[in-house]
Amino acid sequence: MFPLPQPMKMALAAARDAAAAGEVPVGAALVHRGQVIALTANAPRALCDPTAHAEMLAIREGAARLGRERLEDCDLWVTLEPCAMCAGAIAHARVSRLYYGAPDPKGGAVEHGPRFFGQPTCHHRPEIYSGIGEAEAGALLRDFFTARR
Amino acid sequence: MFPLPQPMKMALAAARDAAAAGEVPVGAALVHRGQVIALTANAPRALCDPTAHAEMLAIREGAARLGRERLEDCDLWVTLEPCAMCAGAIAHARVSRLYYGAPDPKGGAVEHGPRFFGQPTCHHRPEIYSGIGEAEAGALLRDFFTARR
Repeated sequence: MFPLPQPMKMALAAARDAAAAGEVPVGAALVHRGQVIALTANAPRALCDPTAHAEMLAIREGAARLGRERLEDCDLWVTLEPCAMCAGAIAHARVSRLYYGAPDPKGGAVEHGPRFFGQPTCHHRPEIYSGIGEAEAGALLRDFFTARR
Repeated sequence: MFPLPQPMKMALAAARDAAAAGEVPVGAALVHRGQVIALTANAPRALCDPTAHAEMLAIREGAARLGRERLEDCDLWVTLEPCAMCAGAIAHARVSRLYYGAPDPKGGAVEHGPRFFGQPTCHHRPEIYSGIGEAEAGALLRDFFTARR
């Protein structure tokens, strides 16, 4: 066991806050030149926005902050494997590296389902690192869904 | 030739406006109970938002207007085949019917690439109708890219 990198710790904390607010606990952190410029959590219910996944909010907030639509010099940390929508957004934004925690066999689109970044029509593939904080991220999701049953 | 349905006419007009503003010309209209509740165009440059495709903006605006994250009673009209990001958003929003104009062999994710709605991990598949306004939508895109070369 080695200590979790700071952006993943922050994303996990954001996910915990989301759970407390009744949202599926997923958190994300966008890092630009070593600095977290957006820390977000899943919020489709609170925002009445089906697209408000943690990754989407981080990309939108980071792009707005940098004043441009491309994030080639940014890394995205997220507690759960991105879905097709978020994987598509990561490619559009040209995110440099993607770090994610738990795999998502039901809705993930990186190592499951459409495996988006492996498609010949995908215009940009980030470097991908998975399993960082997987245990913590997975436990958060399991606890959330167990409590709702 | 039969006349184009009103929502596609409106989406094409929005796409034309996008081209005039220097954005890739794609337009969308979200229809709720026979009424257009969001008319949007591709705007990633203007908004500094890589996720600001016409479909995303229509879904977000429509959901905000209706005050809920699900759009099961809404239809989405868009001038171009949706990409993976937009197809994912359409599924998350539970859009009832998807009508689109031109196919997009390079970035489309409905009948090309990941063919998202056919994936076993896709949680919702709208009814899909394609080719409506295809000639007009395709001409807009071709003219736009020809002028930029």
